[in-house]
Amino acid sequence: MTPLPRTLEWIGDCNGYLRLLDQTLLPTQLAYRDCRNVEDVWEAIRSLLVRGAPAIGVAAAFGVVLGLQRGSALTRLREITDYLRTSRPTAVNLFWALERMERRATIDPRALPNALLDEAVAIQNEDAAMCRAIGKHGAVLIQEGQGILTHCNAGGLATSEYGTALAALYTAAEQGKQFHVFADETRPLLQGARLTAWELQQAGIDVTVICDSMAGQVMREGKVQLVIVGADRIAANGDTANKIGTYGVAVLAKAHGIPFYVAAPSSTFDLSISSGRQIPIEERDPCEITDSFGKRTAPLGVRVYNPAFDVSPAEFVTAIVTEKGIIKPVNAVTIQAVLGGANELREPATNAPPGRMGKD
Amino acid sequence: MTPLPRTLEWIGDCNGYLRLLDQTLLPTQLAYRDCRNVEDVWEAIRSLLVRGAPAIGVAAAFGVVLGLQRGSALTRLREITDYLRTSRPTAVNLFWALERMERRATIDPRALPNALLDEAVAIQNEDAAMCRAIGKHGAVLIQEGQGILTHCNAGGLATSEYGTALAALYTAAEQGKQFHVFADETRPLLQGARLTAWELQQAGIDVTVICDSMAGQVMREGKVQLVIVGADRIAANGDTANKIGTYGVAVLAKAHGIPFYVAAPSSTFDLSISSGRQIPIEERDPCEITDSFGKRTAPLGVRVYNPAFDVSPAEFVTAIVTEKGIIKPVNAVTIQAVLGGANELREPATNAPPGRMGKD
Repeated sequence: MTPLPRTLEWIGDCNGYLRLLDQTLLPTQLAYRDCRNVEDVWEAIRSLLVRGAPAIGVAAAFGVVLGLQRGSALTRLREITDYLRTSRPTAVNLFWALERMERRATIDPRALPNALLDEAVAIQNEDAAMCRAIGKHGAVLIQEGQGILTHCNAGGLATSEYGTALAALYTAAEQGKQFHVFADETRPLLQGARLTAWELQQAGIDVTVICDSMAGQVMREGKVQLVIVGADRIAANGDTANKIGTYGVAVLAKAHGIPFYVAAPSSTFDLSISSGRQIPIEERDPCEITDSFGKRTAPLGVRVYNPAFDVSPAEFVTAIVTEKGIIKPVNAVTIQAVLGGANELREPATNAPPGRMGKD
Repeated sequence: MTPLPRTLEWIGDCNGYLRLLDQTLLPTQLAYRDCRNVEDVWEAIRSLLVRGAPAIGVAAAFGVVLGLQRGSALTRLREITDYLRTSRPTAVNLFWALERMERRATIDPRALPNALLDEAVAIQNEDAAMCRAIGKHGAVLIQEGQGILTHCNAGGLATSEYGTALAALYTAAEQGKQFHVFADETRPLLQGARLTAWELQQAGIDVTVICDSMAGQVMREGKVQLVIVGADRIAANGDTANKIGTYGVAVLAKAHGIPFYVAAPSSTFDLSISSGRQIPIEERDPCEITDSFGKRTAPLGVRVYNPAFDVSPAEFVTAIVTEKGIIKPVNAVTIQAVLGGANELREPATNAPPGRMGKD
């Protein structure tokens, strides 16, 4: 496949800057935004200029490098990481990457700032390797001629390279398998219509955009044999937070006897929380729903509820595809067995905000 | 409550014209469109300037009056009704109203065009009475303090007066009950965000707009105790066609143990078809999904699937509220019992297109 434009790229040495593909402008404009300080990165994460759990982690790591440029004292490290932690609450990869950066700084204080850049680049390179490993494991699940439904964007744009859920599709396509993808448009910000459809189109993969409300209909018509989505945080028991609407798709898949797969790296697991009830659900600006198409679409003053994520309980998840292999069935024991002690990349994200579901 | 602006109004005698509230401009503009010939009415129905199964029936009836103005011979009647039948395929009220107009013309050929105007006005008046009767029966289902979810718009804008699903809410509110409504925005054309939210806001009823993909989340949070929606066509066994996305809501309601009610007049039943598999599903222009808000939201050339309706099987429907009473449980026998032989308004809509689900 044609390589996609790079989602994130560090330009220069440790005094350089972070170049991001501006995902808010896709698919109509292909433009980049250069982040030259930590505030730029915070704003880019907050505004979804860069999004997708793995890509947020990589961007935050580079944000720490930017924050400690220009002779900023190492004493500012915690201030910078705490600031970046406030950019978005749900994807745990953000907290995981920031902890890695803190650990590296503690181990190697005299080698800064180069050591921090090395660590951020390592996170990015591991992310790219993770994409390929998930692609390899996930492609096994894809059968010739299937209809495959995905929600939001868990593709190259959400990571440093191939994506998570879409990595499985890219790898299957490279293996010569033919299949058809339904991309839920994914209101309110339309990552499915804008990003997934664009990525798959670039890669020459057959894709049809549907509204989120049509997922049930295409399943009932027998057009879908498999669902695969990404994840923003997975609890120790397998409960999976992902883009709002994923839970509805999981319920529909179960009702139609269709396997529902999650693809995510080990950095998306938060083993410090026992279930999805502890995952914080970000609530975003009402105007994403009422004004996001450049035209007001709801009456002035109307109340809006805009949770950005939901949690699909483990019992709805047929399997989780990780870079270390496939977890199936999904429960605390099988997750531990696959991620295992060998999961050196990952320790409980003690600084991730303990969550609650269902804000009122 | 403050009366809503009139959805449809005939102005003048049998040489008059039909004034429609332009629903495509709401909620930002309150404007009317005058239809002075049958082509105007066809276009208004096709473009959803007037929409909602009962309102489509009423508009089509007035369309026949317009078609036979200016001395058009009665021999043109069938040509005119056949033309109007092509405006939209799913809502059976359209076919029902056109058959009533044809029957009246046959009975009373010498009294035309006055007899046709009388018949159209009768259809409209019966529709208004139907709204009040559905409101009365439906209000019984609404309990103090409930969270109520609705999809699309089955309100005053979809009928000649109070609506169907929303009639139950308006009547309950008039009875002093307090409750809270979640309005699914209803992609692609956002009838929930644009129309239902606006109507309820005008009526002083507490309403929150959510994206369609959030229905599962609000149910999981325990915020919804009842779902009520309208219908475009109900088969003899109770399978119910309604706006795309309704089926997904029905599956979610069942998974959460929440009652799922349909509210519709007897004119929405099509007793000539045994099940929902025979209901034709209208497929609409892809640009409703890719370009509908003045901004392109999917890549050029991408494939789109845009079914306008789906069918919720009878087993997902807790009860159907009609103007003749509540049908519960929902099956061919109970439907026959409530609609009964007394259902003189309704004969099988033999001219309605026999349907197929799942166009490819």
